[in-house]
Amino acid sequence: MSVTLVEIQQAAERIRPFAHRTPVLTNESLNQRVGVQVFLKCENMQKVGAFKFRGACNAVFSLSDEEAKRGVVTHSSGNHAQALALAARLCGIPAYIVMPDNAPQVKKDAVAGYGGQITFCKPTLEARESTMGRIRLETGATVVHPYDNERVIAGQGTAALELLTEIPDLDVVIAPVGGGGLLSGTSIAAKGLKPGIRVIAAEPELADDAYRSMQAGKIVPSVNPKTIADGLLTSLGALTFPIIRQNVEQIVTVSERGIIEAMRFVWERVKIVIEPSAAVAVGVLWEKKIDLSGLKVGVILSGGNVDLNKLPWQ
Amino acid sequence: MSVTLVEIQQAAERIRPFAHRTPVLTNESLNQRVGVQVFLKCENMQKVGAFKFRGACNAVFSLSDEEAKRGVVTHSSGNHAQALALAARLCGIPAYIVMPDNAPQVKKDAVAGYGGQITFCKPTLEARESTMGRIRLETGATVVHPYDNERVIAGQGTAALELLTEIPDLDVVIAPVGGGGLLSGTSIAAKGLKPGIRVIAAEPELADDAYRSMQAGKIVPSVNPKTIADGLLTSLGALTFPIIRQNVEQIVTVSERGIIEAMRFVWERVKIVIEPSAAVAVGVLWEKKIDLSGLKVGVILSGGNVDLNKLPWQ
Repeated sequence: MSVTLVEIQQAAERIRPFAHRTPVLTNESLNQRVGVQVFLKCENMQKVGAFKFRGACNAVFSLSDEEAKRGVVTHSSGNHAQALALAARLCGIPAYIVMPDNAPQVKKDAVAGYGGQITFCKPTLEARESTMGRIRLETGATVVHPYDNERVIAGQGTAALELLTEIPDLDVVIAPVGGGGLLSGTSIAAKGLKPGIRVIAAEPELADDAYRSMQAGKIVPSVNPKTIADGLLTSLGALTFPIIRQNVEQIVTVSERGIIEAMRFVWERVKIVIEPSAAVAVGVLWEKKIDLSGLKVGVILSGGNVDLNKLPWQ
Repeated sequence: MSVTLVEIQQAAERIRPFAHRTPVLTNESLNQRVGVQVFLKCENMQKVGAFKFRGACNAVFSLSDEEAKRGVVTHSSGNHAQALALAARLCGIPAYIVMPDNAPQVKKDAVAGYGGQITFCKPTLEARESTMGRIRLETGATVVHPYDNERVIAGQGTAALELLTEIPDLDVVIAPVGGGGLLSGTSIAAKGLKPGIRVIAAEPELADDAYRSMQAGKIVPSVNPKTIADGLLTSLGALTFPIIRQNVEQIVTVSERGIIEAMRFVWERVKIVIEPSAAVAVGVLWEKKIDLSGLKVGVILSGGNVDLNKLPWQ
């Protein structure tokens, strides 16, 4: 069983009262620099500053009453944790968040600020999973995986659904790929609405496990990636990989330099704050590794959560 | 003779093919923090990154054919220089820009990039004006003052015209004040469309000459102001002062700390890049110096041109 366009449309209805319909921006300087007509879907302006809220919100509001009462649980130190905490609060149910004890204070504060009940553990995948397992047993909470979850994938697809509803004549849509939740949802929505559209994925060169997975025909795990695009460190999942294989034309890798240059250009010229992971998608155009000249290209800007005290060009 | 709503409406028609209709953004975190419902008119996303393009464009495209042939001239080291250069290029006429020789290289490059013909002079007002006078005599170019010019004021008023067309039930509109071009145009548009609306000006405490001018009932010049809001250093003009006296309820001053905090909050939460001068307008709400609680408040974000290597919180 996989995710369909209908499920994404249902997700859009479900999350409509809670999520932002984010703006689509265009910019002449950017178009000129990259030689294509770019439409930026601003998920940096989504609640919690990232597309992750869409998936978390769809997952939470899809729970049965019985499930909802017992709450949700996940392990995450990033945007998914905040997104799930906020979605749960809006639904009036508990969110149990397992975080590594070395997570930055600002992220701990953000999750707590959204009402998440944090349990700290050692910063290993093993510790995170065993801690989450224990909480699940104790509370009966439903696990909401950050990407390998059909409700989450359907929720993430609602960004592309909005984008294509607003700009129906796109030729190409580009989304960044980490675990593949956003890319999967994007590809299902785009191909479902417009079978001829080209779906292209953007990945850091220094975290090119999805690229290598596509080459190998099986999931190649991401091992200690060192990219600045800290939202794209995870490996593809059992659900996302087959969707991506089926729908995505190509995974294009972007250099660290390309990520930073594209990020800075967007800040300076488009006047919006995007995080490095979002800049990876712009980087595909920036580095011109594939010829899309003259086409209409939608780019999903995945998020805008950055530490303003630590910018990559400084 | 002064500027009327009709002239602003005509300006809007005149600049429509060239200027952006900038987005109006809202943000729940900001609303909660300041206790009012805020509507941000994003002139940071205007061409050249500032509202200045509206006025320059209206001035340039209002010239007679005979005048246009001879071009336009101004002295400015800031956004007005870039705006005038670009407007002239779009109109196919020369723009002569007098800049102090100590202007930052990035600003020289920007003006040159828009096709402006730069003449450098010593960094004194005298040298700037005498150099401009010489060029005017030599070329017959029309002087376009950055704010004390009716066409410029009418052009700047188009931002508020758009804002109120989109959000007609605003109770208050806030604009920053430097020379007063934006504030004058904003106040005429707002009062013209909606006589009961309250127009409030935002000024840095450390450059409070407009505040003092209102108190004194005559123009008090700005002397060596030291604020971070480098777009608000100039004094009111003979045209702008009477308009402001008539239409503006109050000039509220904002501390440097308030400017920087408001700026950072907007970057972090709204995910847009605004310059300190734009943050001054948000700062009025941020510092809660006047009670606007529960009201619908439009804020003109004047621009987004900042040096990303030198952020004020670092």
